[in-house]
Amino acid sequence: MNCELCTAHHPREIWRDDLVYVIDASNEALPCFIRVISTQHKAEMTDLSEDERAYIFRILMLIEKNMREIVCPDKINLASLGNMVPHVHWHIISRWKDDAFFPDSIWSAKHQEMPLEHFKHRKSAAERLLKILPKQLDALRNNQTASAC
Amino acid sequence: MNCELCTAHHPREIWRDDLVYVIDASNEALPCFIRVISTQHKAEMTDLSEDERAYIFRILMLIEKNMREIVCPDKINLASLGNMVPHVHWHIISRWKDDAFFPDSIWSAKHQEMPLEHFKHRKSAAERLLKILPKQLDALRNNQTASAC
Repeated sequence: MNCELCTAHHPREIWRDDLVYVIDASNEALPCFIRVISTQHKAEMTDLSEDERAYIFRILMLIEKNMREIVCPDKINLASLGNMVPHVHWHIISRWKDDAFFPDSIWSAKHQEMPLEHFKHRKSAAERLLKILPKQLDALRNNQTASAC
Repeated sequence: MNCELCTAHHPREIWRDDLVYVIDASNEALPCFIRVISTQHKAEMTDLSEDERAYIFRILMLIEKNMREIVCPDKINLASLGNMVPHVHWHIISRWKDDAFFPDSIWSAKHQEMPLEHFKHRKSAAERLLKILPKQLDALRNNQTASAC
């Protein structure tokens, strides 16, 4: 098996526990883009246990909430596709009306360019988000038996 | 407000309760495509309560499980984008290696055509899925206080 997501340490990793790791997936067009990846090589959410997927959903919602508060995007996009790499991973993407793809998906064709000043400002906010998330994820993990989703 | 998802009865609806409704979103390229739509006009999952989003996640997983068992796709895609219609809705899409977009997203450019015999066979399985889902969703709703996600 040669799966690029089966790795004990991803170069863009910001947090990890036994079940998932979280990476900064931002790029030159999308300043705030986070990926949540199962540590298990399973293709679908329903290949995971109920507890494991509930935990992943709580992580997605924690990241979405913080992303909205700190980065203030116009829209959040959530997706688990995995057609290229069939290993559960979720995209959490800040979208803005002036981003390269809006209102289309980020997998559609680019049709505009985000103004550089906007990109810089949002990238700076995304960096603040990436700094505070590990503590928040630690807290969620330590509290994962409490009811939340 | 003129939102196309704010409707008391969608023409392709297969199930509804107070919190969500479920529609057949299949089209000429994708024989098995289901959409789960909040009955509330909220843009993001984190605009909903914890209970509401946990319920939506349970519905997504119930549909994914049944879709895999009955329709046997090569991959499941899950996505909540809402850039065009900022009203929470989830896409649950059966993907096949010979579908029009694979391995790209369904929002990418078409680059092949699913063989007609495959389409017909999968459409027939999707119709069986749509028939059994309402009872399964009823059972989930009636049991929503039990732990599951």
